[in-house]
Amino acid sequence: MASTFGTNIKISIFGESHGMGIGVVIDGLPAGEKLDVDALQKEMNRRAPGNDPTATPRRESDIPEICSGILEDTTTGAPLCAVIENANTRSVDYERMSRLPRPGHADYTGAVRYNGFNDVRGGGHFSGRLTAPLTFAGAVCKQILARRGVTIGGHIYAIGNLYDRPFDMLRVHPEDLRRLTQMQFPLNNPAMESQMRALVEQAHSDGDSVGGIVEVAAVGVPAGVGSPMFGGVENVLSSIVFGVPAVKGVEFGAGFNVTRMRGSECNDPFTIEHDKVVTTQNNSGGILGGISSGMPIVMRAAIKPTPSIASKQHTVDLREKRDAILAINGRHDPCIVPRALPAIEAAVAIGIADLMKEVGKL
Amino acid sequence: MASTFGTNIKISIFGESHGMGIGVVIDGLPAGEKLDVDALQKEMNRRAPGNDPTATPRRESDIPEICSGILEDTTTGAPLCAVIENANTRSVDYERMSRLPRPGHADYTGAVRYNGFNDVRGGGHFSGRLTAPLTFAGAVCKQILARRGVTIGGHIYAIGNLYDRPFDMLRVHPEDLRRLTQMQFPLNNPAMESQMRALVEQAHSDGDSVGGIVEVAAVGVPAGVGSPMFGGVENVLSSIVFGVPAVKGVEFGAGFNVTRMRGSECNDPFTIEHDKVVTTQNNSGGILGGISSGMPIVMRAAIKPTPSIASKQHTVDLREKRDAILAINGRHDPCIVPRALPAIEAAVAIGIADLMKEVGKL
Amino acid sequence: MASTFGTNIKISIFGESHGMGIGVVIDGLPAGEKLDVDALQKEMNRRAPGNDPTATPRRESDIPEICSGILEDTTTGAPLCAVIENANTRSVDYERMSRLPRPGHADYTGAVRYNGFNDVRGGGHFSGRLTAPLTFAGAVCKQILARRGVTIGGHIYAIGNLYDRPFDMLRVHPEDLRRLTQMQFPLNNPAMESQMRALVEQAHSDGDSVGGIVEVAAVGVPAGVGSPMFGGVENVLSSIVFGVPAVKGVEFGAGFNVTRMRGSECNDPFTIEHDKVVTTQNNSGGILGGISSGMPIVMRAAIKPTPSIASKQHTVDLREKRDAILAINGRHDPCIVPRALPAIEAAVAIGIADLMKEVGKL
Amino acid sequence: MASTFGTNIKISIFGESHGMGIGVVIDGLPAGEKLDVDALQKEMNRRAPGNDPTATPRRESDIPEICSGILEDTTTGAPLCAVIENANTRSVDYERMSRLPRPGHADYTGAVRYNGFNDVRGGGHFSGRLTAPLTFAGAVCKQILARRGVTIGGHIYAIGNLYDRPFDMLRVHPEDLRRLTQMQFPLNNPAMESQMRALVEQAHSDGDSVGGIVEVAAVGVPAGVGSPMFGGVENVLSSIVFGVPAVKGVEFGAGFNVTRMRGSECNDPFTIEHDKVVTTQNNSGGILGGISSGMPIVMRAAIKPTPSIASKQHTVDLREKRDAILAINGRHDPCIVPRALPAIEAAVAIGIADLMKEVGKL
Repeated sequence: MASTFGTNIKISIFGESHGMGIGVVIDGLPAGEKLDVDALQKEMNRRAPGNDPTATPRRESDIPEICSGILEDTTTGAPLCAVIENANTRSVDYERMSRLPRPGHADYTGAVRYNGFNDVRGGGHFSGRLTAPLTFAGAVCKQILARRGVTIGGHIYAIGNLYDRPFDMLRVHPEDLRRLTQMQFPLNNPAMESQMRALVEQAHSDGDSVGGIVEVAAVGVPAGVGSPMFGGVENVLSSIVFGVPAVKGVEFGAGFNVTRMRGSECNDPFTIEHDKVVTTQNNSGGILGGISSGMPIVMRAAIKPTPSIASKQHTVDLREKRDAILAINGRHDPCIVPRALPAIEAAVAIGIADLMKEVGKL
Repeated sequence: MASTFGTNIKISIFGESHGMGIGVVIDGLPAGEKLDVDALQKEMNRRAPGNDPTATPRRESDIPEICSGILEDTTTGAPLCAVIENANTRSVDYERMSRLPRPGHADYTGAVRYNGFNDVRGGGHFSGRLTAPLTFAGAVCKQILARRGVTIGGHIYAIGNLYDRPFDMLRVHPEDLRRLTQMQFPLNNPAMESQMRALVEQAHSDGDSVGGIVEVAAVGVPAGVGSPMFGGVENVLSSIVFGVPAVKGVEFGAGFNVTRMRGSECNDPFTIEHDKVVTTQNNSGGILGGISSGMPIVMRAAIKPTPSIASKQHTVDLREKRDAILAINGRHDPCIVPRALPAIEAAVAIGIADLMKEVGKL
Repeated sequence: MASTFGTNIKISIFGESHGMGIGVVIDGLPAGEKLDVDALQKEMNRRAPGNDPTATPRRESDIPEICSGILEDTTTGAPLCAVIENANTRSVDYERMSRLPRPGHADYTGAVRYNGFNDVRGGGHFSGRLTAPLTFAGAVCKQILARRGVTIGGHIYAIGNLYDRPFDMLRVHPEDLRRLTQMQFPLNNPAMESQMRALVEQAHSDGDSVGGIVEVAAVGVPAGVGSPMFGGVENVLSSIVFGVPAVKGVEFGAGFNVTRMRGSECNDPFTIEHDKVVTTQNNSGGILGGISSGMPIVMRAAIKPTPSIASKQHTVDLREKRDAILAINGRHDPCIVPRALPAIEAAVAIGIADLMKEVGKL
Repeated sequence: MASTFGTNIKISIFGESHGMGIGVVIDGLPAGEKLDVDALQKEMNRRAPGNDPTATPRRESDIPEICSGILEDTTTGAPLCAVIENANTRSVDYERMSRLPRPGHADYTGAVRYNGFNDVRGGGHFSGRLTAPLTFAGAVCKQILARRGVTIGGHIYAIGNLYDRPFDMLRVHPEDLRRLTQMQFPLNNPAMESQMRALVEQAHSDGDSVGGIVEVAAVGVPAGVGSPMFGGVENVLSSIVFGVPAVKGVEFGAGFNVTRMRGSECNDPFTIEHDKVVTTQNNSGGILGGISSGMPIVMRAAIKPTPSIASKQHTVDLREKRDAILAINGRHDPCIVPRALPAIEAAVAIGIADLMKEVGKL
């Protein structure tokens, strides 16, 4: 099904980019969890548009209104619904969209899927704007996970062909993750920021866009979370992370690099440390046989360049069934990677909360 | 949940490597589908061990016995169950496994998850042997999909650092896929076979193993299959493909390469061809906004090197809580990639069948 | 899971009786369905309080605001969310509830389930008020079903020991159902109204309440909807109908009366009528082996007397762990049956829509 | 979906009455549960045919072969699959069934649902024989529940218009339930047995059949199991109990009798007993707001008379589209109620195990 996720913690996301509002219902949260509403808003602000030159100038305050499921800021166990108003919609930009599908967007496939009734204004339900309620749900899960000793965070691993220093998968520390969360442009090596920004700026001034990679880690997940076959950590996390628009690849631990390793190099040896079973390297990204090993869980997601670009593109006129040229005039992100990061962290948080609840650890 | 997958077509896989048998229940198949039992067996043989020097010498005939759901080789609409006997089990190889977890395997995480009650003989339910019932279920789906014009196939894209010619994502043809299926070592460029085999053989003689990449395509999936957010083609396929042991990464279309592209390069322009909307390149891998575009669906999966290797490895003695050295004496695949290929094709077939049934196209 | 239902059409209900608002997300609706918003409101008004002497005098306008999923009153295929504001909340009535659980209510079991964090004001998420979003979702499904020739309606079959004329299960007609929907006190035999109202009034003046039975029919469901075992029409409808608070029994067709029949009497003989297979009686209530037969689907639900009564009751003080006497001063329905009717019709409509979509008939 | 049930413990049932075999996969069982295989077989024997004059003389040994999920009779946490061979199939009895649908059976609706490809021999997948794997799965759950202090059992509450003494819902005791399980014809008042048997015998000699009611109780379920709305104990139990063929009604606690009560009479007052919150009567059947109260859970299911009767019946010839007369010559149960009892106990056991696992109590 489209816009629902989860087994033990279920989310149901709704809304369109230029409709009245967007939001999420979260069912299955444990009762008695005090929510820090300011911290929730901070997570929302990390994703919100209009705050950074890499992002669209469309401004949205993105203040979620919690309609249900809490009493005195504490979860009641009943479904929590949050609604975010769409304040700043300029539909004029998108008028021709239903006729001239934008390359790289869901305009065409959405029209086929929904017989032309899909709301194309701003991408409708396919819009990246729908990551706002996802980010909210993730922010709620992050707070609950934090009380169980789990910290989730990430950084911009690549923009175009410029790479940040990757996580040391063996030693990534909760403090590192928390520090990254405070940064407007989260990098392990902040010296990369100016080059990366220049790359984005160049693309922008060329009427173009760039993609990149985000790397996210979850530290503190106890061993024994997840299940074999289709209930594994990789299965569950990938199935929610691909819900963030523009993700075209997901990898865990050493990821695609494992394919060039030998077994003797790839296998993470076990040892005893402080009476605990650990590994001396972490190519598995904290997951063996779908189940967490207690080591940091590390994943990467490939983000394609924003498909909305100012340059002219070849498309078709769906009504007249002929080729056409499209120029998109709306406000767009020359690089979506920084705003995708909190959304992907959120997806990881929701997935891990769902899995931990399955084994009675939430 | 662990070993079940699917919404509209549901599979439930059971069995352990060294138990009585393994199998699968498939619920939701359309009624009235004539199954070619010989063709099913041919798919099973592609995955079966003992047939190729890259694979373990353990021989299993892997003949599925269909207990239910068919009458005169035709589906009845009731759940189809197939059981495969485990004939050739040499448990003596695995005696110490519950004490000395094998690096890179689920022995340790499985023991934590199941409080030490998991069957570790041959990896138990975590064994690659469980891809046999998956391959069977996929073979059934492939036959049903073929009648709807959908062909699924793949090739060994990489072994170690040796690469086959990738699919031309715009033009991959059903005939190409069928031809690959007939090959014992499926490559787009068969000239690579000897080098790749030599690489595997070298690893084998070193008591080691190598990984690789498989690339799978589904041709003929109509536009409009899949859903936004969490019900997209990428979400569904990744959630089942990560169920094949040893997969550490999944990508669609240009995959991680999109991260180094600009939008103007990455976006697939639309055009009209024979009155049909198509794209003039296929970086999206046939998926936009989670929904099929009608172009070939192309994905790649990263397969880690077989973790069972002959060389000595560092591990721990779980009973005595101390470091230990492990030497594995069983029969193992120096390279699992060729046998993973039919399993991943099967996973893709099941996922696509599930999605096509959702929109009434199966 | 708690407050979500459905496989092909999914609803997720949220809200508490005395919170900010209540609502529902409906995912999986077909695209292109024009909604008659006035007709939706009429269904809401049938359930709304304050309109009839059998009901609580609490007034709620119950105007659902549709946030998403429609464009120009037509479904887009994206999730439809509707929110209903809670206008009239008098929390003072319920202050002691968390300490003194009301007999017959979920106050005690909810406190155990949610460790005392559940919102007890007005019953919180357990309140009958949550049938408002259910009724809304059902009203949407009813309109979509009507276009497929399916009509759903019902009547008050019993209040206390006073019985209306039951449906003629063989011949219940869409017109009958539509006529009942227009009645404020829907009865097949309107002559019963005054007696029934007198019974309710007597209970009310005694500080007490009465229960009853509703009977609901769905006419026009084609043969072949539903599945064997756990996917049958009875399984699906009962699993949603028991979601209406106060339902303690559900039966289909002749229901519990079948237990006193012989097979020769109970079996519905088949015949050909106008080239169509029909039955000459309908004890099965239109369902054989879980699958619709094309005859009217008829079910009944037993509704317990409203547990909130003015008379003093024995309860316990949960804080002081001692027996206590409770007097409830809030506004309550002396008989919930008339307001339960549209909610149960809605539940049936949602269940049937879900099942019809499964077999491609929605 | 058809033949799968459950969220936290999932079962997938397969097989047809006259196919090779029938069986079940159970996914999600806790690891480390020692199974008493003899006790499992005893439960199977309670349901098996050929053991009592009320039942069909078809003999089936019904010995489940456990293929997976256990090691040394102890659950491993992996899916447990059990297969039961169909030994005694006399298909000659059913040859004309696909043409002449049996009244009261799924022959006609199954043919519509599956386009005539359903296996009609003996009812195929719709056969009461499919309650054998259900009974097996329930027997496994019963043993696991017993270790958590939960006992499940039941009695024949009615055959035709002859009634056994109902459970005292406030005081039903585990010992009572265990004693009933040992009886071939389980009654609270064994003096009713001869009358009931005479009623069945009379129907049999008339070429007819009779229905009845079973009453099942679950004692020891702790308070706080289940969820509001659609995840309640009633929702979950009814959705599995209606999977037992011939069930046409399900009620909990006082059930349909609540409809004739006043609130003051129906509400169960709370009191403190041995420092525990209990109720002084149990009209709610141990369930308030969908959540267990800690009191005995009591439910009843209405079983229709076996539709297969020797007397001639009116049906249609589906091929020639004309009315026809049907005489059924197979072996049938003149009263299915005694054999339905262990199946319904099993359904209740599976449902409760699923719900208890949800809240971490399994």
